Amino acid sequence: MQFKVSANFDYTVNNPSTIVLSHLVHHSKQKVLFENLELTPEIFNEEISIGPENNRLTRINMIEPGNVKISYQAQVQTAFSITDFSQIQDTSVSNINPEIFPYLYPSRYCQSDKLTRFAEHEFGSIENVFDKVAAITDWIYDHVEYLSGSTNVETSAYDTVTQQAGVCRDFAHLGIALCRVLTIPARYCAVYAYQLAPQDFHACFEAYLGDKWVMFDATRLAPLNGFVKIAMGRDASDTAVSNLFGEVEGNSIEVNCELLNGEFQPFYNDRNNLKGLVYDNYQLCTEPSGACSTG
Amino acid sequence: MQFKVSANFDYTVNNPSTIVLSHLVHHSKQKVLFENLELTPEIFNEEISIGPENNRLTRINMIEPGNVKISYQAQVQTAFSITDFSQIQDTSVSNINPEIFPYLYPSRYCQSDKLTRFAEHEFGSIENVFDKVAAITDWIYDHVEYLSGSTNVETSAYDTVTQQAGVCRDFAHLGIALCRVLTIPARYCAVYAYQLAPQDFHACFEAYLGDKWVMFDATRLAPLNGFVKIAMGRDASDTAVSNLFGEVEGNSIEVNCELLNGEFQPFYNDRNNLKGLVYDNYQLCTEPSGACSTG
Amino acid sequence: MQFKVSANFDYTVNNPSTIVLSHLVHHSKQKVLFENLELTPEIFNEEISIGPENNRLTRINMIEPGNVKISYQAQVQTAFSITDFSQIQDTSVSNINPEIFPYLYPSRYCQSDKLTRFAEHEFGSIENVFDKVAAITDWIYDHVEYLSGSTNVETSAYDTVTQQAGVCRDFAHLGIALCRVLTIPARYCAVYAYQLAPQDFHACFEAYLGDKWVMFDATRLAPLNGFVKIAMGRDASDTAVSNLFGEVEGNSIEVNCELLNGEFQPFYNDRNNLKGLVYDNYQLCTEPSGACSTG
Amino acid sequence: MQFKVSANFDYTVNNPSTIVLSHLVHHSKQKVLFENLELTPEIFNEEISIGPENNRLTRINMIEPGNVKISYQAQVQTAFSITDFSQIQDTSVSNINPEIFPYLYPSRYCQSDKLTRFAEHEFGSIENVFDKVAAITDWIYDHVEYLSGSTNVETSAYDTVTQQAGVCRDFAHLGIALCRVLTIPARYCAVYAYQLAPQDFHACFEAYLGDKWVMFDATRLAPLNGFVKIAMGRDASDTAVSNLFGEVEGNSIEVNCELLNGEFQPFYNDRNNLKGLVYDNYQLCTEPSGACSTG
Repeated sequence: MQFKVSANFDYTVNNPSTIVLSHLVHHSKQKVLFENLELTPEIFNEEISIGPENNRLTRINMIEPGNVKISYQAQVQTAFSITDFSQIQDTSVSNINPEIFPYLYPSRYCQSDKLTRFAEHEFGSIENVFDKVAAITDWIYDHVEYLSGSTNVETSAYDTVTQQAGVCRDFAHLGIALCRVLTIPARYCAVYAYQLAPQDFHACFEAYLGDKWVMFDATRLAPLNGFVKIAMGRDASDTAVSNLFGEVEGNSIEVNCELLNGEFQPFYNDRNNLKGLVYDNYQLCTEPSGACSTG
Repeated sequence: MQFKVSANFDYTVNNPSTIVLSHLVHHSKQKVLFENLELTPEIFNEEISIGPENNRLTRINMIEPGNVKISYQAQVQTAFSITDFSQIQDTSVSNINPEIFPYLYPSRYCQSDKLTRFAEHEFGSIENVFDKVAAITDWIYDHVEYLSGSTNVETSAYDTVTQQAGVCRDFAHLGIALCRVLTIPARYCAVYAYQLAPQDFHACFEAYLGDKWVMFDATRLAPLNGFVKIAMGRDASDTAVSNLFGEVEGNSIEVNCELLNGEFQPFYNDRNNLKGLVYDNYQLCTEPSGACSTG
Repeated sequence: MQFKVSANFDYTVNNPSTIVLSHLVHHSKQKVLFENLELTPEIFNEEISIGPENNRLTRINMIEPGNVKISYQAQVQTAFSITDFSQIQDTSVSNINPEIFPYLYPSRYCQSDKLTRFAEHEFGSIENVFDKVAAITDWIYDHVEYLSGSTNVETSAYDTVTQQAGVCRDFAHLGIALCRVLTIPARYCAVYAYQLAPQDFHACFEAYLGDKWVMFDATRLAPLNGFVKIAMGRDASDTAVSNLFGEVEGNSIEVNCELLNGEFQPFYNDRNNLKGLVYDNYQLCTEPSGACSTG
Repeated sequence: MQFKVSANFDYTVNNPSTIVLSHLVHHSKQKVLFENLELTPEIFNEEISIGPENNRLTRINMIEPGNVKISYQAQVQTAFSITDFSQIQDTSVSNINPEIFPYLYPSRYCQSDKLTRFAEHEFGSIENVFDKVAAITDWIYDHVEYLSGSTNVETSAYDTVTQQAGVCRDFAHLGIALCRVLTIPARYCAVYAYQLAPQDFHACFEAYLGDKWVMFDATRLAPLNGFVKIAMGRDASDTAVSNLFGEVEGNSIEVNCELLNGEFQPFYNDRNNLKGLVYDNYQLCTEPSGACSTG
């Protein structure tokens, strides 16, 4: 499938400042057909690459006070497969790829170390490891209310599990933390999301099952196959949309994601069948729908 | 300088388990002259390398229940320089190396996002950036009581800043968190520490000042120039001595670090002069004492 | 029924200190047949009465350093009734006795304000208000592991609901907090407990249902009809066994509760029938068993 | 002095609900010259008295959905004395009035048990007990930023000591918690406050020094001698302006406090002289200014 995404930022700079943005589409496994970044006024900016997933950040150094507008458009081709995980084996730490290890550790917003008994009590006895993650996702959907403004940048999985209200970021953090307790590596994904209403940056998570990163979204606010990835990391601290250094204020952000091309069949998880969605390398996919296999 | 370090672990395994240990000396900038790892009984183990700092872990897969002893010895040559930081410029995010960025983010045990006002109020007006870190280190030493058993694996910088008791790990976490608020990249170091009494694994932290990682230790329990590095990371979640998967219990750990060779002049920070210690690449150092420069 | 209870304390005083103990049996509704308090050496002490429930405290002022032993025995007659609550109406704040109001407020260890969504989601749809409390009690019993040493004096209901381990005090705090969310007044009870093994001070809670304080104990470690009350309050901060002011150390506490007289049929809650236990005024009870009615 | 106070509330009731308001002026030590409470429409309401301080609450039971306006005016005569505390002795728990004891305990928003080391380190070595409280008040004023909207109903002293932003309620909670660590009884006061701008309900705290409740306000937003007391308690959980049971929404609150009569000399604490303000019984005061003594 092909998507057209855009993001427009508006900042007021009061003093020399540095803005670091995470909104460029990710390069791994998805093909960037077109991309344009425009700053008004024209200020020096550079793309930098961060962390084990090579997330692409834009660093903008603003010497002069004033207003800055940042306008970004891209066209991206994605591909995915839908796989039957009913026979999946547990991920074994005994031979897991070392690169995956850090996704088992607790992190700022995913304090898996504090959720041990809860996770084991609720989900420990589920046999199939894909079903465990599906059950976690369902639990979050059933118990946590999606409520804009109910949380802030300090809210973590430990809060959300009890307070049971939050936004996409909180849903993802809780999913990740619960997976890690059960020795399932899990990572945070910042994405553009087709059919998300209202449009905004979105967050979901991937669990590492049978040597694949499988996509989950406990909010169910957008189909799993309509995501265009921006960044992956341990949690939102690795993938913040913006990090502002200096006296600079954000005025507005506009985000959009449209289907450019291809027939779109929304895919959501359903615990009645253990099928999961994996984002594939677009190069291996020849189906125009982007749906390469339905194993 | 040359140090001889050793670590002996004793575990009881009840079911097939995986132990991941972080106790091998680090390879960067220090020279491993000799190294030996012995398991009793002889079980398969492998060395894996993790994260941006290439920390060396030992993964041990234990199929059979029973007792396992792990015995490690190494001889290591280290080198350091002591530099005058009185003219140091602030680290600027406008041109900082992208690899350094993640050390500005909040992490599991270093919730810099929750300590903003505290850190800015206490340390924000100090001019010299090295002096800021020295002041943070002094504040921790003055306010936090070193008290074995007062904290646990869930304790974080946010607890320690108020509860004011902890062990080396807590001292390091608080130092790191406060640095990050002030836009000073900081990372956790797990080390063997000469002259630490009683001997144990030790934790300290490095702050990134003028493109160098400068060593700090708010506990003052061991001299800064007697450390042999094991692992670096965002906090203790990246560098835990042991991660146990399965039914396995730790019985005992014995740690030791001795001076093998070289004259040792203990170095501690002192805010009256702004001299800091940087671990250099041993290859660039020809002084037998390991102290290459006292700029 | 008649119980014989005892408590022996041993303290070492290093400097002039004040010890305030809460171990005398409560006077309301139970009859103290015999009571003796002995201090070695003989130090001045006074009984003081605290708070809306007139809890009896012993205040001991120790001028001289040294060892102090406090030895207490009492014989107490209690009475209770077991009532069918299947037709109970909700407690209505519209006409509740003002004295009861504070038992609806959040308190130090029972932060009901932070558990709103959790409690309403889990228990809000249960119709009968007695059954709500029974369901809360069952949930705690099912989810929280009784684990000595897993918590400390700072642990609160907000921790326990997620971390799911604790001791009797933690079980009671969580029960109280969840009741208060649902507009059910609830209070903490410190008691001597017959058939508790090993013997120790025990904690349980009472919920205010249909103008009666009904006894609940989520630990199920001792029968509800074997309690001899010491103190009631909003939570453990109102009823701490000991408050020590000055340099004084506790060496040991020994507690005991025996049946002196009367046939004892252990009573526990069972959600299959909605029968609850209320401690009655002993004066109204003529049954030697202490069980006055089984309405 | 005589003050005229008023409070107007506007609620929308969707279902049968009970509103419990705490806005009537307190009766102890201050004289209510005139008082009027009007509800539109005219609904049944009753005054109830709560807790050891006999706080006056208004309970309003609303059967019918619709809009409710509550309008309150009162004229109150207060009296105070300003006393030199430079020779004050420490409050001794060895002979303190039992009624005072609960103001030493930790409470929902004043977790003194978690602030022990902090309070002792910062304030423990100050000799004079009045000066201790003055130092606490100054520390809060210097470190905590008054910032509307920065906190919410869950925010407690443990948060504020580190996060260092809040409103009057948070300033009071932190003051109370720190006093209690130092064995100084302290209680929360909800008041009308003359010269507070903008006008609103205000919160301050009293410390028990030498058998008197001495007024403190770490916000310094209004003079200590312009307060008209509404309620006292362990913290805001005892004195919430409104407790809403049922489906009812608050639309607006308007508060006012004016000087009716008497010359007003604003009084604030100043650590350079150890003079404190105590609200006296108006009956003992014959000075029209309400300032009875300046001992």
